[in-house]
Amino acid sequence: MSTETVFTYGAPQLKFGAGAADEIGYDVGQFGATRVLVITDAGVLATGAPARVADSLRTYGMQVQVFSRVHVEPTDESIAEAVEHARDTGPWDAFVAVGGGSCIDTAKAVNLLTTCGGELLDYVNPPVGAGQAPDRPLKPLIAVPTTAGTGAESTTVCVLDVLALKVKTGISHARLRPVLAVVDPTLTHSLPAEVTAACGMDILCHALESYTARPFDARPRKKPAQRVPYCGSNPVADMWSERALGLLSSAFRRAVHHGHEDTPDARAARHDMMLAATFAGLGFGNAGVHVPHANAYPIAGRVADLPEAFHPAGYPAGHPMVPHGMSVCLTAPEAFRFTFDTDPDRHVRAATLLAPTLEAPDDPAEHLPLAVTHLMRDIGMPNGIGGVGFGEEDVDALVEGALKQQRLLDAAPRDVHAEDLAGIFRRSVENW
Amino acid sequence: MSTETVFTYGAPQLKFGAGAADEIGYDVGQFGATRVLVITDAGVLATGAPARVADSLRTYGMQVQVFSRVHVEPTDESIAEAVEHARDTGPWDAFVAVGGGSCIDTAKAVNLLTTCGGELLDYVNPPVGAGQAPDRPLKPLIAVPTTAGTGAESTTVCVLDVLALKVKTGISHARLRPVLAVVDPTLTHSLPAEVTAACGMDILCHALESYTARPFDARPRKKPAQRVPYCGSNPVADMWSERALGLLSSAFRRAVHHGHEDTPDARAARHDMMLAATFAGLGFGNAGVHVPHANAYPIAGRVADLPEAFHPAGYPAGHPMVPHGMSVCLTAPEAFRFTFDTDPDRHVRAATLLAPTLEAPDDPAEHLPLAVTHLMRDIGMPNGIGGVGFGEEDVDALVEGALKQQRLLDAAPRDVHAEDLAGIFRRSVENW
Repeated sequence: MSTETVFTYGAPQLKFGAGAADEIGYDVGQFGATRVLVITDAGVLATGAPARVADSLRTYGMQVQVFSRVHVEPTDESIAEAVEHARDTGPWDAFVAVGGGSCIDTAKAVNLLTTCGGELLDYVNPPVGAGQAPDRPLKPLIAVPTTAGTGAESTTVCVLDVLALKVKTGISHARLRPVLAVVDPTLTHSLPAEVTAACGMDILCHALESYTARPFDARPRKKPAQRVPYCGSNPVADMWSERALGLLSSAFRRAVHHGHEDTPDARAARHDMMLAATFAGLGFGNAGVHVPHANAYPIAGRVADLPEAFHPAGYPAGHPMVPHGMSVCLTAPEAFRFTFDTDPDRHVRAATLLAPTLEAPDDPAEHLPLAVTHLMRDIGMPNGIGGVGFGEEDVDALVEGALKQQRLLDAAPRDVHAEDLAGIFRRSVENW
Repeated sequence: MSTETVFTYGAPQLKFGAGAADEIGYDVGQFGATRVLVITDAGVLATGAPARVADSLRTYGMQVQVFSRVHVEPTDESIAEAVEHARDTGPWDAFVAVGGGSCIDTAKAVNLLTTCGGELLDYVNPPVGAGQAPDRPLKPLIAVPTTAGTGAESTTVCVLDVLALKVKTGISHARLRPVLAVVDPTLTHSLPAEVTAACGMDILCHALESYTARPFDARPRKKPAQRVPYCGSNPVADMWSERALGLLSSAFRRAVHHGHEDTPDARAARHDMMLAATFAGLGFGNAGVHVPHANAYPIAGRVADLPEAFHPAGYPAGHPMVPHGMSVCLTAPEAFRFTFDTDPDRHVRAATLLAPTLEAPDDPAEHLPLAVTHLMRDIGMPNGIGGVGFGEEDVDALVEGALKQQRLLDAAPRDVHAEDLAGIFRRSVENW
C-alpha cells in the first residue's frame, strides 16, 4: 500500500469579535446578494440575535425573510419543511444561518436543495441515501453561531435524523461549507452555565479527537476524486486543535462558573470559549472526529427509551435528552485509553495543553483521561453513561448504534471492532 | 477614540504535499473551468513545473495555454502585456499561477483586469492610482508556489513597479486572493542554497513582522467598508506566525546546507520550509508586515545606483540586485530593537520560538535581534546594508524610499518617523 502524502485544508472566511454580527449586512452585500433568507430556530429567535442580523441586512438594502422553524436536532422532515419554504419563497441570493449546529446544518441542506434540486435522500450519505454530490457551486451561506460549541460554521457536513429509519446520518460535501463565519461573542451572553458546560465538552472533544485521529499520512493514497474533507490529523488541523486546548485550559471553568456575570473576566472567558469553538471547528472540520462522537449518537438517540428519564438542568424541560456535548464526553476518557498506544506522546501533549498544572500520573496512558475527568467533575458533567441512566444491560444496543457511524470510526487511529466499543461503553458506566 | 473589537481572517483553500501539483486538474475542474490560462515566467518554465500543471489540467479535459512572459518583479508594463495577452486570447474560466510572488501577483492583476475591465492604474493604491475596488467577484485563481517564501498565494495584494514614477506600489483587495493554493514541496527541489536562504529570510520576516504588528485591538474602530485584509496582529495570525517560527527553528539551516541532497532529511527540511512559508503567508496575509518590509523597497530599488555592483551568489548574473528576502532581513535586527518596548514578552517569545537553544542575553531587548543575526550568519546573509554596498551616505535616500511605504509603516506597533528610520538604517550598516 502506498501511503498518502497530501492533505487538504478548507475553511470559511472569518469575522470575529464583539459587534461583528451588527455589520453583517456589509459582508453579505459583498457577495452581491439582494434577497436573503435568515434561517434560525424559535429558541434563538427569542434571544433577538436573528432580528439584529436581519436589521443589519436591511440597513444595507437587502430584502430579508426570517425562517425560524428549524428543528433542534434536524430531521429529514424538518429539513424538508425548511426546503419547501425556501423554494416557495425563493429564489434567494444568499442564506444566513443564525444559531447552533441545527440552524447552520439546516441552512446547508436548504442551500443545497434550492440550488441543485432533487430530494434530500439523493444527497444523504450511503447506505441511507444515494450520496450524490452537488453538481455546481452553491449560493453563499453565511453562518452566525450563537453557541460556543458545534463548529458547524467550519464544517462540510449536515447532520440529520432520518425518522422512518430511526438513524442519524448526514450529507457531506466540500460545497456545503459556509463561505463566511461571523462569530460574535456577545451573542452567547444569555446561555445558562449548564449549556456552556455541555457545549464546551463538544469543543474539547472536537480538539482531542481531531488531534488523535488517524494521521493523513498513515492512510492509503487517494485519487483526487476520493479525497474527503475529513482527511485525518495533519499539521494544520493539529495547530488549531492545540490552540483550542490552550484556550480551554484557561477559559472553560471560568466560563461555566462565572460566564453569566457582567465583568471583564467573564466577557474574556466567553470570548475565549467562542474562539476555542472556532479554532476546534477549523481543526476537526478538516481532520475529523472518531470514537467519542460515534458513541454519542446512540447515547443521545436511546436516552428516550430508558426507564428513568434523564432531564439535564439548564435545558428546556419536556422530553428526555442528553445534550450533544455531554453525550460526546461520557466515553471520551475510555476512548483515549483505547487510542493511547497509537501515539503516546501526542496523548500526553494534549493532556499537558489542557491541564498544564495537573501532576502527571505514573502511567502516561492515564494522563489525558485524568485531565478530561478532572474537567468533567469541575463543570458538573454526569459521571459516565451511568450518570444519564445507562447500565451494563444497555451496552449491546449502544455498540450496535455506534457501529452505524462507520465514517467516524474509520477516522480513529486504530481499527475499532464491536468488542472494543463494548469495552469502552462498559468501562464508561462510571468515569471516576 | 473607541478601539477595534473585530478582526478578520481570510485564506485560500489549501492542498499541500508531495504530488499535489500533479492532481491540480481535478481541483480546477471543481470550479467548472474548461478554458484555463497558466501564468508563469521563463525561469520557472525551464524547471518543467508549468508543464506538469498544464498536463494535469489537460488530463481533466481542459483547454490550456501557458503564458510565460511574467517579469520577475512585475512592472506596470509587464502586467499590461500579460493582461493584453489574456484579453486577446480569452475569455478564460480560471487562472493558474505557477511560480514565485511575481507570477502569482501578475495573475491577480490579470484576473482583475480581464474580469472587471478598465486599466491597471484604475485599481492601483492611491496616490499612484485611483484605488478603485473590483466591482464583482473575480474568476477562480489557483496559485502553485514554486519557491518557499513569498506567501503570495495567501495574500490579497499585487505588488508592482510603476516604471515612469520609479515607485513600487500595489493593488490591494480581498477579491484578489487566490481561492486555492496547491503547495507541492517537490517543486522546490532545484533551488540553489542561496535562494533557499534568501526566501527563508522572507518567511522569517513575514512571521516576525506580523507577530509584532500593531494589534487589531489597539487600532481605531473601523466601519465595515474601511476594513482592510491586513488588520494587525490577532489571535489567528499569531498562531500561524508562532507555528512558522517553530518550523523555521528546526528546518531553516538544514534546508540551506543540505536541501539539495536527495536524502529523507533534506526532503523533510524542504517540506517544512514550504509549510513554514505557507503558514507565515496565512499569518501576514491577515496581520500585515511593517518596518523591515518597508525598508526593503529602497534597499532593493537603489542597489543598481551604487558605485560597486552587488551580485548575489545563486542568482542569475546580469544586473545588480538584492533578492527580496535578503533586502527584508538586513534591517530586521534593528527594527525589532525599535519595536521591543511595545511588547517585550512577545519579542522574547518570538526569539525563543526561533532559537529555543540560544542562551537568553542579559538584556531581553537583545534576544530577538541576536536570534535573527545568529541565523543570518549561519546561512550566509550579508552583514547589514553595508554588506550589499550601502553606507552612511545612502541613509537619507533609503529613508525617503521607506517613507513612501506608509501603508506598511502604519502597521508597525509604534509610530515611525523619518528620524527613526534613519537610526534604523544607520545602525544596520553592520548587523554584527
